[in-house]
Amino acid sequence: MMRTFMQKAVLGMAFLLTPLSLMAAEFSAENLAQAKALAEKAGKSELAYQLDESLSTEVGPRRVGTPGDKAGIEWAVAKMKALGFDRVWTETVTTPGWERGDISVEAVSPFPQRMVAIALGGSVPTPADGIEAQVVAFPNLDALKAAEAGSLKGKIAYIGYQMKPSIDGADYGVAGKQRYLGSEVAASKGASAVLIRSVGTDNDRIGHTGAQGDKSTIPAAALSIPDADLLESMMKRSDKVTLKINISSRKTADVKTANVIGEVTGTERPEDFVVLGSHLDSWDVGTGAVDDGMGVAITMAAAKHIIDSGKKPKRSIRVILFGAEEIGLYGVKQYYEKHKDKLGNHIIGAEWDSGTRMIHQLRPGVGEKSLAAIKQMAELLKPYGVALHPSNSAKGQSDISVLGKAGMPAINFDSDLTDYFDYHHTENDTMANVPPETMRQASAVYTAFAWLTANSLIDFRK
Amino acid sequence: MMRTFMQKAVLGMAFLLTPLSLMAAEFSAENLAQAKALAEKAGKSELAYQLDESLSTEVGPRRVGTPGDKAGIEWAVAKMKALGFDRVWTETVTTPGWERGDISVEAVSPFPQRMVAIALGGSVPTPADGIEAQVVAFPNLDALKAAEAGSLKGKIAYIGYQMKPSIDGADYGVAGKQRYLGSEVAASKGASAVLIRSVGTDNDRIGHTGAQGDKSTIPAAALSIPDADLLESMMKRSDKVTLKINISSRKTADVKTANVIGEVTGTERPEDFVVLGSHLDSWDVGTGAVDDGMGVAITMAAAKHIIDSGKKPKRSIRVILFGAEEIGLYGVKQYYEKHKDKLGNHIIGAEWDSGTRMIHQLRPGVGEKSLAAIKQMAELLKPYGVALHPSNSAKGQSDISVLGKAGMPAINFDSDLTDYFDYHHTENDTMANVPPETMRQASAVYTAFAWLTANSLIDFRK
Repeated sequence: MMRTFMQKAVLGMAFLLTPLSLMAAEFSAENLAQAKALAEKAGKSELAYQLDESLSTEVGPRRVGTPGDKAGIEWAVAKMKALGFDRVWTETVTTPGWERGDISVEAVSPFPQRMVAIALGGSVPTPADGIEAQVVAFPNLDALKAAEAGSLKGKIAYIGYQMKPSIDGADYGVAGKQRYLGSEVAASKGASAVLIRSVGTDNDRIGHTGAQGDKSTIPAAALSIPDADLLESMMKRSDKVTLKINISSRKTADVKTANVIGEVTGTERPEDFVVLGSHLDSWDVGTGAVDDGMGVAITMAAAKHIIDSGKKPKRSIRVILFGAEEIGLYGVKQYYEKHKDKLGNHIIGAEWDSGTRMIHQLRPGVGEKSLAAIKQMAELLKPYGVALHPSNSAKGQSDISVLGKAGMPAINFDSDLTDYFDYHHTENDTMANVPPETMRQASAVYTAFAWLTANSLIDFRK
Repeated sequence: MMRTFMQKAVLGMAFLLTPLSLMAAEFSAENLAQAKALAEKAGKSELAYQLDESLSTEVGPRRVGTPGDKAGIEWAVAKMKALGFDRVWTETVTTPGWERGDISVEAVSPFPQRMVAIALGGSVPTPADGIEAQVVAFPNLDALKAAEAGSLKGKIAYIGYQMKPSIDGADYGVAGKQRYLGSEVAASKGASAVLIRSVGTDNDRIGHTGAQGDKSTIPAAALSIPDADLLESMMKRSDKVTLKINISSRKTADVKTANVIGEVTGTERPEDFVVLGSHLDSWDVGTGAVDDGMGVAITMAAAKHIIDSGKKPKRSIRVILFGAEEIGLYGVKQYYEKHKDKLGNHIIGAEWDSGTRMIHQLRPGVGEKSLAAIKQMAELLKPYGVALHPSNSAKGQSDISVLGKAGMPAINFDSDLTDYFDYHHTENDTMANVPPETMRQASAVYTAFAWLTANSLIDFRK
């Protein structure tokens, strides 16, 4: 049902006439009761798990520009329509292209032995017969930066930084930089190739891939963590460890992908919407069930629980499955360019793009005047183990952070990341590491968030 | 030092004159005190861990007939000599040959997606362009056995048995059979190839390899556990799931390997010896640090702790690193054929060939009259968390069990196997899964065992 202009004008006037102290500062009791009931239902539902299983079984990995990426977009459009979203559409995204090709890494001397490694995203190839060279090891990127220019000529640089696990995954910021800039810095010192210790916290003989900066000009790969240990053990025993690396990855022409968007239309302010974000693309190892199949499924399920309630929120709910997040947030950046003049209609947003364990805290990034409402939300979510963090500077996770930094209010629902980086960007990104209990809890949280914020007219802006 | 015939005869007579109640029924107080001191030293030593690290770093995987296998034999001979064993030698072992080649498995329809699998040992190849066929799933080998002959013509058989973890790894007996006989049984029903759910208890996207029976005549591979889940999830959604399998594994001419044997010579009965067993070969995935680098290192370290004590035991200690265990106990079987007329000189034996967690119990398989001594041993090992199991029918682990079944007294030191089958026969067989605390505890246990039994004249036979 669309309201007439007159109805909207009357509603707008009512808004203006409400004293500031009462105006939209808190969620109504009715709204809270509805959100509570919705969360309870969502918290018992297996829908999110089932959606993730559907995506990872029927599509699997969805690296940008691959057939899986296209199949994922088709899956998402069809699924959103089947779930009963009011509007479903795609918006084309253009990104650089890259092919993974093959990789082999082996110790040649003094201890001949195969190693397990994975090319980093965007890696250029080695010559067809590979690069055979001595390894020079650095404990971290800063040590590599301190090497003299030209000192690594004809050498393979190795960066051994070991990411430390923690509940907030804070060390990913440091460890990710080794991966992102390793090739660029090693090249500046004359190295022929760069190997990093995988950015991860596991002990599996599986490499962690991930994006690199645009200035990566030499072949780059991540050793699995046990292979990084192995290389370091070899280097303790020999001054001259020689590796052979063969990588056939290559950059290609630009490719097309898409953001997939589904909307549940609001009744009073349909042009305003709450954003539920995630990304549909994944890396090409694993099935993308965790990163970010979980987010895709949790946000789609949240909307579906609201659709199934038979009630319509006052504002719209926009579920955005961003494309091309993994290779550098291309999807959301192009979304922003296209929609930035309507940023004010993006009332508030939250994304799920990290974690396999449960959400343990809520961090807002909203205007002071709406903090009372956020406290109500936190109170409602307390039974789910979600605590309110005292800060108020969140910008949203991953994709949503681009909109958050541009001014959109956001909430970060932080899950416990202690073991997330065991699986992140690896073959182990599968349903086996998606806990059904997290899917239920996160469904409850995102459903409550979406309903509360969409079914109110509170202004969350700063 | 070799004793003269006369000296031996006198000793033999003394033996005969000792009353049965006292004769060799218990370890002497001196022996126990020495064993206790040796165990304490071994329990604080990193030697076993370091030996395993040396083997897995400097050699790595040692599948029978590969360059790594040869390098492993050279490593072991050199290392035993360097450690100060009195005698070190090899005995050639001949086994069937096999090359792993490459493998790819992918779902073709209705859900095109790559899968992770590993060829089973001894698998024959598919045709060069692979086998593309519909999958017929069976929950276990018995269900496959119940299929009608010829009913799987042109199909790929899939066996979904999921191994259950437990402290004694008992389900390996059941699960291993699915792997060992899957190809033979599937072939008898007309199948073109067989896939099994990996015999393992992990959730890693890594397949578990392992031996098959001699009658495996069709291509055979193990899906990683998440891929087994994936296949089953596809089959829930579609009556007709088609896979394409390409395997280039092949059987080859016989290959040579060796048992490597090192001896610490006894002072009174040098011709009699206590056996410390393990196997030097490994699968070709992982570095063989766990299976059975741990056993190699623990038993070599036990002998070294005794060598370093400056004391010589009365009997000899024979450390045997068997070859070709993984493909069917070829090394020990050929050892037995060669030495069976001297089985009586094999006083008692113990092997380490399973577990990464600590030893939790001691199970003897000895004559009743020597149980008092075993109880003393158990008492000595109690502070290390080792309990005496009330049964007395142990035959020794793996290789040693061949000698145990032939009559050699044996002790099984059982480690907690709860997560052993997470890593077993996979890429994750690396030092990252070798706990230093287990290496210390097991060193204490095997050192005490070796010293107590070698430095006595107790008859452990039934």
